[in-house]
Amino acid sequence: MKAYQDMNREELMSLHTDLSKQYNNIKSLGLNLNMARGKPDFAQTELSLAILDIVNSHYDFGEKMEYCNYGILDGIPEAKEFFAEILETTPEHMIIYGNSSLTIMFDQISRGYTHGYLGNTPWCQLEKVKFLCPVPGYDRHFAITEHFGIEMINIPLYEDGPDMDMIEKLVNNDECIKGIWCVPQYSNPSGIIYSDEVVKRFSQLQPAAKDFRLFWDNAYIVHHLYDEHKQVLNILSECEKNDNADIVFEFCSTSKITLPGAGVAALATSLANKKDILSHMSIQCIGHDKLNQLRHIEYFNKVENLDIHMQKQAALLRPKFEAVLDIFNKELNGLGIGQWTKPLGGYFITFESLHNCAKDIIEKCKEAGTILTSAGAPFPYGKDPLDSTIRIAPSYPTLEELKQATELFTLCVKLVSVEKLLSQMN
Amino acid sequence: MKAYQDMNREELMSLHTDLSKQYNNIKSLGLNLNMARGKPDFAQTELSLAILDIVNSHYDFGEKMEYCNYGILDGIPEAKEFFAEILETTPEHMIIYGNSSLTIMFDQISRGYTHGYLGNTPWCQLEKVKFLCPVPGYDRHFAITEHFGIEMINIPLYEDGPDMDMIEKLVNNDECIKGIWCVPQYSNPSGIIYSDEVVKRFSQLQPAAKDFRLFWDNAYIVHHLYDEHKQVLNILSECEKNDNADIVFEFCSTSKITLPGAGVAALATSLANKKDILSHMSIQCIGHDKLNQLRHIEYFNKVENLDIHMQKQAALLRPKFEAVLDIFNKELNGLGIGQWTKPLGGYFITFESLHNCAKDIIEKCKEAGTILTSAGAPFPYGKDPLDSTIRIAPSYPTLEELKQATELFTLCVKLVSVEKLLSQMN
Repeated sequence: MKAYQDMNREELMSLHTDLSKQYNNIKSLGLNLNMARGKPDFAQTELSLAILDIVNSHYDFGEKMEYCNYGILDGIPEAKEFFAEILETTPEHMIIYGNSSLTIMFDQISRGYTHGYLGNTPWCQLEKVKFLCPVPGYDRHFAITEHFGIEMINIPLYEDGPDMDMIEKLVNNDECIKGIWCVPQYSNPSGIIYSDEVVKRFSQLQPAAKDFRLFWDNAYIVHHLYDEHKQVLNILSECEKNDNADIVFEFCSTSKITLPGAGVAALATSLANKKDILSHMSIQCIGHDKLNQLRHIEYFNKVENLDIHMQKQAALLRPKFEAVLDIFNKELNGLGIGQWTKPLGGYFITFESLHNCAKDIIEKCKEAGTILTSAGAPFPYGKDPLDSTIRIAPSYPTLEELKQATELFTLCVKLVSVEKLLSQMN
Repeated sequence: MKAYQDMNREELMSLHTDLSKQYNNIKSLGLNLNMARGKPDFAQTELSLAILDIVNSHYDFGEKMEYCNYGILDGIPEAKEFFAEILETTPEHMIIYGNSSLTIMFDQISRGYTHGYLGNTPWCQLEKVKFLCPVPGYDRHFAITEHFGIEMINIPLYEDGPDMDMIEKLVNNDECIKGIWCVPQYSNPSGIIYSDEVVKRFSQLQPAAKDFRLFWDNAYIVHHLYDEHKQVLNILSECEKNDNADIVFEFCSTSKITLPGAGVAALATSLANKKDILSHMSIQCIGHDKLNQLRHIEYFNKVENLDIHMQKQAALLRPKFEAVLDIFNKELNGLGIGQWTKPLGGYFITFESLHNCAKDIIEKCKEAGTILTSAGAPFPYGKDPLDSTIRIAPSYPTLEELKQATELFTLCVKLVSVEKLLSQMN
């Protein structure tokens, strides 16, 4: 296999003719595929349907009849215990919410903006508020900070986490910087895992802004693809050790554990932050859906059962990830026109094309009936500086659809790369 | 029965001795009763437990399997249809949310504050923002506007609705006034019903502020105590008739229909407002709990079944309201020391004591082990200018507890009134 860069014009021209023919053939099939969003597929949601059975009219509510009424603002005690065990903390640090951790994050940003944290100045009264955004990252995070007019600063994300030298320099000197978006375990979309060293350095930050917060989105904390896995160091206890407990809001949810949309979300933070949050929440709601919290607790009963459940999820997801990676290997290895991640968990594979090719590849896929996450989505303001990062979401299509889509994708990568190399020869 | 005002000092003194003895007797019982919050009781929540059975793992999801996944931001079509029928509008005007209409209202205020409605200036950038508050009203409404530093202006609430002359004069001339809190059907706490005339005048407002909104909390729209009832005129269609569709946000929820905390909330508004709201919501969440929406639709199937269900609720509530009113009649009629509402629906009875007595009555009840809604709660900033309004919530205690609590209450009314009259003789 010859690398494309080593080809001369004639070889590239001939290759282009061949690839174009293949592309037009696929295009004529009129595919309708989607690898855009990190949604569980039908089989994954089916896996959890029994959760709907357990809290029914024959359930022995006893004292828990109060769960059918208003109140219990921070969640039912069983749920606080359960999520505390997952997040390796204690129930008094927990608040259990409704169905969406994204909504908790939005609310936390919104509260920083309207009221400020722990008595600090509301951000809407400040000239300038900035957030750090390790990239590539999660588009919905960046959409929230953009929505509130917060300036976003790109931070390079490496194999072991974001660039901590850069973060320390920025955070410890600029009091306009109020937070950072982090997905520590199986980062969205690159799938990397923060090293212990990175977590420790986060916990030791001495931010210029008293209201600086780590938005620690542990969305994939139990979403391992393989039995053997590395668990990210516990940020809450590290922060506590460093007398820095208030700098972290940690989020998680069961959206990709049980049923997305009908799951339970949770937040873990310091006692001072929790008190502050509850004082605002008491104005905002009377309590979240406690029966859905109870449903989850009764369904899993113990965290060990959740682990078993996640092994079943992994068994459904793993073949899809491996199918994509196999096709990448088979089709692209040695061509020098792209690199890709081999994640051990989470929901995404990141593909890095030659510079200035991502948009064109995605457009070419779309023309042939396959939707990918928009170019630039993993970057603040949707702007990928190198136009090279593509997020692949293997979960939602069927295995057959996924293979078709991935074949098409690799073909588009080749075609666009050839065109790029040819254009550079002009 | 002699009115207290017609008694001379000796009569009042003797009465006081007698009432004090009765009070001390009750106090020694060590009661632990609560008439503070409008919570359904055990029997009411039990009435709806079968809602938990219908969407289970044997449910034939078919095409609705998507309801188990992310998405469908404005709610499932069946729910939009169902709530549209209740609110006498069409599904395209509806957004179906999670479990709490209070949270929708909070979000709407918060969005006015952070982003503004339909391109208007966000309130956080304005010197002064004001809201009109018909009084007595709902403490949680006022808590939201207070939370955002919005100045609240009391508006008298009469038998047929708020003082429309005053509202028109204020709203049509002061562009700082951005909204009004309304509970049109069985107002919380006075239980009054807005007349057709009042609704029409609301729909014809010509606010100085382009972003003025009616926060139309139709919390008790189907919560009638008696089969015969008057229904408040449809605000949305009245506003549409007057080319004024954008001035209303109408809210409702099933919290006091099925299970509080595990219900479904909804908003109806103009198409322009809906589009504006969804553009913000798309940043805030991926979708609400669609399975709980489905649960509600499957449980009721038709609005007629909901009406039958509400008749069962009424059968549980009516004896409680009537027990309170009977005791008020028996104990207080003709004494000239209080007036009370005889609501035809909703969750509250309002008691009006002599001026400057409400706080003392509530305190006396508390000392004898019975909690009432805090004095002043039905007013902005918790300040009842006459210190005379007391909200009675008959729903939560058992009938026996309620009778005990009401007996104690009437005794405290007598005792405090005698003391007040005596103090005025000094």
